[in-house]
Amino acid sequence: MRRAPTLALALFAAPLLLAQAPAPEAPPVYNAADGIIANAPAGHWLDIAPDDLMVMDTTAGQMVIQLAPAFAPAHVAAIKRLVRQGQFDDGRIVRVQDNYVVQWTARPDPAAPKPAPLPPEYERPLAGLSFAPSPYRDTYAEAGFVAGWPVARDAAAGTVWLAHCYATVGVGRDNPPDTGDGTELYTVIGHGPRHLDRNIANVGRVLAGIEPHAALPRGTEELGFYRTEPEKTKITRVRLASQIPGFPKWQMMDTASPSFAAVVNARANRTGFIIRPAGAADLCNLRVPVRQAK
Amino acid sequence: MRRAPTLALALFAAPLLLAQAPAPEAPPVYNAADGIIANAPAGHWLDIAPDDLMVMDTTAGQMVIQLAPAFAPAHVAAIKRLVRQGQFDDGRIVRVQDNYVVQWTARPDPAAPKPAPLPPEYERPLAGLSFAPSPYRDTYAEAGFVAGWPVARDAAAGTVWLAHCYATVGVGRDNPPDTGDGTELYTVIGHGPRHLDRNIANVGRVLAGIEPHAALPRGTEELGFYRTEPEKTKITRVRLASQIPGFPKWQMMDTASPSFAAVVNARANRTGFIIRPAGAADLCNLRVPVRQAK
Repeated sequence: MRRAPTLALALFAAPLLLAQAPAPEAPPVYNAADGIIANAPAGHWLDIAPDDLMVMDTTAGQMVIQLAPAFAPAHVAAIKRLVRQGQFDDGRIVRVQDNYVVQWTARPDPAAPKPAPLPPEYERPLAGLSFAPSPYRDTYAEAGFVAGWPVARDAAAGTVWLAHCYATVGVGRDNPPDTGDGTELYTVIGHGPRHLDRNIANVGRVLAGIEPHAALPRGTEELGFYRTEPEKTKITRVRLASQIPGFPKWQMMDTASPSFAAVVNARANRTGFIIRPAGAADLCNLRVPVRQAK
Repeated sequence: MRRAPTLALALFAAPLLLAQAPAPEAPPVYNAADGIIANAPAGHWLDIAPDDLMVMDTTAGQMVIQLAPAFAPAHVAAIKRLVRQGQFDDGRIVRVQDNYVVQWTARPDPAAPKPAPLPPEYERPLAGLSFAPSPYRDTYAEAGFVAGWPVARDAAAGTVWLAHCYATVGVGRDNPPDTGDGTELYTVIGHGPRHLDRNIANVGRVLAGIEPHAALPRGTEELGFYRTEPEKTKITRVRLASQIPGFPKWQMMDTASPSFAAVVNARANRTGFIIRPAGAADLCNLRVPVRQAK
């Protein structure tokens, strides 16, 4: 862990005084992946469809969420329908559990017909997808990437699923596996709870704006639910980017590109501050680069 | 992810109406580990020496930190000396980086002699320790436990080290590996940054009170450092528990005990909400139970 800048300077001062003609200290390369990302050619990025971007404004800030229709088509369609109906406007963040999740709900609408439960889209067939394995072993399954997403697969069963990592977005459900309806979503704000993989429909990930929401006070009820209404952060407006004129376009790095292979290698073999590279990195530490399109 | 309680009740209501004499719904067992922990016999717990507990009061709350002298003896001795000198009183939380760390410093003391740099206690010999391997494979090394601590080992080199997981406490340093002096500490508040293993002296873990600190606003400077003084949370007082009359005693589960083996198994093979158990769990998801002694 890097020390605070002022202390670092203090400690660097003595050797500099001894040098005859001290060259300016070059800042150490903390993570070579940054340079690879900055220099990745345009062809190594994939455009994200504005219709797959859910823009959630809360009184804490704005979260930009990328939806993943290839992995949970019925859930994503239901969520988009709720967004277009304005059903998340005046929703609430109802739960913040430390090292786990931030969870929010659409505005309750007693007049609305009970939404149909959705199928348990917890994994999908591998067929039709190009799975690129991670070079490094995974505790839970076989880790890898599909078109910009961190996934795991069961080669024997021929299935693949979005992995639960920091900022992954999933759909809350009750105990029976078919009761999620898309009105209650969460994002991960702790160590990747990979035990939830294949038990919940993951529908996307937060691209930007998770920070102020991960910094919300933790709820004091069981599982981090808030006890009182005033504790709940208000969701002011949720729209798809396709509904917002001029909303920035976003891209994700193509996980099949040479740039991404270089990022993976750089994250496993860090330099600068790191003296002894790990030589490996777990799936949730191999975050796929995303950016606003240039 | 469990839905909010009110919605869960709404969804449970219909089947209950159909039942002739509905039994009260037993709450589903979300995590069988809880019962194992609650029922673990006294002999399966290890006392934590009050001299190894660092009690840090900040304007955000109180963090109880367990120090690990077996893994970084010189660093822990230096930190205890600073605590006894009151050097952390009026210190500051200087950095909060999302999905990474909360970092704090002792009160700068221009009159104090420059603290001697400490040796790079990034790993230690396996000799003299009883390493119990985790049953599950690890991306980075060989995962396991030593006397209540999550560790990884390099069997060929004969070394072992504390792993970087959520709530692990380490010592900030500059780029040369010997510049940490114990005046700057951090704790992990995101996905386990295991690439820091063997690159930093880990000195302990937060047992209690991480929540309000993990919920502090993220710093806006590079690496999450705060830009201005008023943003920094004030550390009001740091003492060892041995200096605080009547401070509660703490225990950690003996990781060599049958209860801990049962906890590990339960976390890898969850029931209740979990339909399809993972059959494995990574080191940072196998948190060692701790408690206030009864």
